[in-house]
This record gives sequence, C-alpha cells and structure tokens, in this order.
Amino acid sequence: MIIGVIGGEQADDDASSLAFEVGAGIGRSGHMLITGGRGGVMRAACEGAKSTGGTTIAILPGDDLFDANEFVDIPIITGLGFARNTIITRTANALVAIDGMYGTLSEIAFALISGTPVVGLGTWEMRNGHGLEAPVIRASTAAEAVAAALEHARPHPGQRA
Amino acid sequence: MIIGVIGGEQADDDASSLAFEVGAGIGRSGHMLITGGRGGVMRAACEGAKSTGGTTIAILPGDDLFDANEFVDIPIITGLGFARNTIITRTANALVAIDGMYGTLSEIAFALISGTPVVGLGTWEMRNGHGLEAPVIRASTAAEAVAAALEHARPHPGQRA
Amino acid sequence: MIIGVIGGEQADDDASSLAFEVGAGIGRSGHMLITGGRGGVMRAACEGAKSTGGTTIAILPGDDLFDANEFVDIPIITGLGFARNTIITRTANALVAIDGMYGTLSEIAFALISGTPVVGLGTWEMRNGHGLEAPVIRASTAAEAVAAALEHARPHPGQRA
Amino acid sequence: MIIGVIGGEQADDDASSLAFEVGAGIGRSGHMLITGGRGGVMRAACEGAKSTGGTTIAILPGDDLFDANEFVDIPIITGLGFARNTIITRTANALVAIDGMYGTLSEIAFALISGTPVVGLGTWEMRNGHGLEAPVIRASTAAEAVAAALEHARPHPGQRA
Repeated sequence: MIIGVIGGEQADDDASSLAFEVGAGIGRSGHMLITGGRGGVMRAACEGAKSTGGTTIAILPGDDLFDANEFVDIPIITGLGFARNTIITRTANALVAIDGMYGTLSEIAFALISGTPVVGLGTWEMRNGHGLEAPVIRASTAAEAVAAALEHARPHPGQRA
Repeated sequence: MIIGVIGGEQADDDASSLAFEVGAGIGRSGHMLITGGRGGVMRAACEGAKSTGGTTIAILPGDDLFDANEFVDIPIITGLGFARNTIITRTANALVAIDGMYGTLSEIAFALISGTPVVGLGTWEMRNGHGLEAPVIRASTAAEAVAAALEHARPHPGQRA
Repeated sequence: MIIGVIGGEQADDDASSLAFEVGAGIGRSGHMLITGGRGGVMRAACEGAKSTGGTTIAILPGDDLFDANEFVDIPIITGLGFARNTIITRTANALVAIDGMYGTLSEIAFALISGTPVVGLGTWEMRNGHGLEAPVIRASTAAEAVAAALEHARPHPGQRA
Repeated sequence: MIIGVIGGEQADDDASSLAFEVGAGIGRSGHMLITGGRGGVMRAACEGAKSTGGTTIAILPGDDLFDANEFVDIPIITGLGFARNTIITRTANALVAIDGMYGTLSEIAFALISGTPVVGLGTWEMRNGHGLEAPVIRASTAAEAVAAALEHARPHPGQRA
C-alpha cells in the first residue's frame, strides 16, 4: 500500500519532528510513502521514511526537479501546479495530515471526496453549513497517527491483494 | 469580471433559493458567472443569472455535456474530474460559496491558495492547527454576498481594465 | 457551437494572415471561437473573430493574464501548463489547425482521441507505424477551412440543439 | 533514471513482443520503467521489466486500479483521463514509442514540447507544414531502442547525480 503525508512547506520544529516520526513509522511498516515532494513537512516525512528503509514517491507540481527534496526516490513531474494535489489524495490508501495551510486543506477535501481516510495531527478542523464536522480521524502522537492510517487504509477498487 | 458560485450538487430549498438570488445579482451586475455547471447550487445560480440577462460559464468535469445544466451558455469540457475545481477558483475574480460538501471545501481551499476572495453563505468554517480561521468573508443574505463579492473582487495579475 | 483554432505562438505572416481570416469567418458564422489565448496564430484568430463581432474564449496555461492576447473576451485560467491543450480540443465542436509546432501536434492528437474533427491548413501530416494517415481534413484557403469546420462540426454527446 | 514506454492499448503480436523486449532491457539496465499502466504495449513492457527484476511505475488515467495491468509496482492514480499523458512524458528521462495510435501521438508531441528524447520503433512519422520532420530517434530493434534511450536520456533540470 501507499500511505501519504500532507502538510505545509513552511513547518515549525514541532510539525517537522512529527512528520519525521510519521515517515519513519511508514518506512518501518513496509509500505511506500507518497508526498508532494517539496520542503517542510514533506521533506521531514521523506527523511523519516528513508531513515527506516522506506521508499518515497513525490508528486511534484513543477516542470523540473529543483524543488524536490533530497529524500525523494521516485519523482513524478506533473507540471500541473496545485492541481497535482488531487493525485496525491487519490493514490494514497490513507493520508496523515500534519499542521498545514490551504494546500493541506485542499488535500484533506480531495481525500474526503475520493473516500481516502485522513488521519489528522494538529491540522485543520472543518464544520460545514449544517454543523457537520469533516470526518478526519484525530491522533495526538506520530505513533498513533501511523497506527490509525494503517488500520483505516482502504484498498483501491480493483487493487490486488 | 467573472464571479464564481460554488456549492453542492445536492442542495436543499434554502441553498437553491440563495443560489438563485446570488446568480440573479451577478447577472444584474453585468459580470459573468462561472460555476461547475452541474445541478443543485450550480444550476440554481445559472438559472438566476439567466433570469437577469447574465452570461454563464461552466467548467465541467466530464467528457461530454450530459451533466451540464440547461442554463449554461459556455460549457468548457475538461475531462479532468474533480481537478477541474482548480480552474473555477483561478478563473473567478471572486467566489460565493453556498452550503456545500467536500467539493465546495476543496474549492474554498484552492481559492485561498490562489488569493481569490471567497464570500461564504452558510458554508464551511475552518480552523487550522494553530487556531487560525480561514479568511472567508461571511454574508447572511444573497444581496450581502453579491455586494461583498463585487467589493472584494480582485483583478487578475495582467488583467486589463 | 464552439470552433477552435490551434497553431503556433511563433507565426509567420502567412500563418497569421490565414488565422485572422479563419477567425473572421468563425465570428461571421455566429459561433464562438476557442483558442489557447496567447500570441501568434491564437492572437490573429482572436483579432479576426472580434473584427466580425465574434466572441473569443481562451484556455490559458498559466496562473494569470499576462500572456493573454488583447482580443480575448472570456479568459479561463487553468494553471495546468500544456495539459490545458486537452481542454481546448475537448471543448471545440471542430478545430482548424494552422501551421504550428509540437503544441499544435499535441492538440491534433488529442482532438483525434476525443473524436473532434480537425481541419488542417498548412499543418502537420502524420502517418502511424502501419502507414495509416491521421484523418485530418485538408483545406487550402481560410474560407475552405471555415466551411469544412462548420460542415464537420460535431455536437457533443448530450449537447442541446 | 526513469525510462518510459508508450504505445497502444491495442497491440498486435509484433508490437507486444517488441514492448516486452524493450521493458526487459530497461529492467536489466537498472533504471525504472514508466508507462500508462494499462494493456497492450504498456502491459507487455511492464511484464518485460519485471522479468529482469525492474521496477514499474504506472500513471493511470482513471479513479481506481481496475485498468492497471498486473505487472505494475507503483500505481499513480490521476483521475485526469488522457491529460495524464503529459505526466508520463515529463517524468521520463527518455521515451521509447512503439507502434500506437492517437494517444501515443499525443505523448510523442508532449515529449517534444518538454524536450524529452523519443526513440521510435515502428511508430508515427510526422512532418509539419514547413516540411520539418519531428526529431524522433529511429530504431529498428528492441535492443537498439533501449541503447538509444539510455544514450540520449536527459537528466531533468535540478536532477541529482
């Protein structure tokens, strides 16, 4: 399976540290990590995954590799700008959202459209016009987040065992 | 200028009625309306705009016109699925978000990424991990929403007067 | 209906002059013109359409309007780079290809995938590995090209009369 | 590096056999294979790569894995339809085009836009309106095609050694 980590390119020490631990947990699990491939939370998650022998896939927004972080194994160059966010959320079997700004919010939304489970670590809380809270699974530690992502991860329709 | 209306394909009577009034206000203003071109809030907004002589642009997700509503003047067929949401939010000079579910949430997020002002009518409220509320301009009537959208509408970089 | 004109951003006098005449013919026909919205053949076609009272739609690759030509009425800002070519070819009911380089070649290919008829004016000729020539309808004057585009234009599935 | 193989979903025995051999050569080279992930040439190339221990990446057009072939290791689910062709051609450091119809033609065109070298095996020949032949490197055997792809493969701007 492929587990995604989403979060801001600007990340403080807390978010970066959580992202590293989540990435490390994904690497340790034997599943692949998918991110947007850039800095901040994305870079820390990739570094964590590599530290435990994981494989890292990046869905990059630009036309080249200048903004890919150095822990990316498989860089996918989309040239689609922020529309590439839809690809991360479709490809992941589950996502962990850490902190983040509007890009992360868009990815949470797209994951909910696609039915991809989202685990939240200090990230957006959203309530629609009828008071419905968006169904993000809340975790409070990196270990909890990884465990929840693996537990809720959903095979894609048509996915082989 | 081009003003967008975003909101759910499943809309109750209240949301549909608000969407009709917002569309009518946009048509009356002499600006064009852009939507996702389908049913619910999108259809009601288009019907409203046509009732006051407006022009309606639709950014459609599919490969054909079967899901375009009958009040669309200019159907743009993208074949991109939900990734087409990014085009609506980039093309609009301002957006009015009415009610809505995850698709609408993704459009609010993309508008905030692009710097497109968003006016909210009974729609999502969002707070990030640091307690920051997303900067949606709140309105409580259709007339207020149209006025706020026109007041805050932002010319695109490079836009001619 | 919506008729597209595709061709290079770098256009010599012959190509520009043909594009102006094709755009003028489309404007005169009462149908809308769709292009990529930039310079060269795209700009000349838009100028032609405006000279006869037509309406011009542009599917722009970037994030702003700096590269839109001054004859565009309805600018759609995609932020998708060259992937926006697929939208032009899906949205048009027929296309006229004038001269052009690889971007034009990609649009001819996408039109053929989508079943959108393509009329060629001094543009690419293509033969596949089994010797099959791509079914581009050849014209030798602007008037012939417009007539052929209108004759072969195909309503989209689901299109209302 | 990542080497792409493009070609039709409908492939005769000759094209399938060439695709298997090209995929096998890429697997043997230690580089990764990228394809559109479906049947025909794509499936045969993936099967070839797996037969020599390679890793296969698929850029899928749909929303699920039903149309992915069984030799895909890393399925990227785009939901973008044919617009996903632009991602294959940007991500590859070189491409081998085998036989193919309009989808393959669009990928050759996008590769030429992006500056990705294309090696052709029994595929499209294209000449523009000024008689310029598109710069596809021609090969006549699978071994020649793999050698040419590896020789001409271009690091992406920003790519680390």
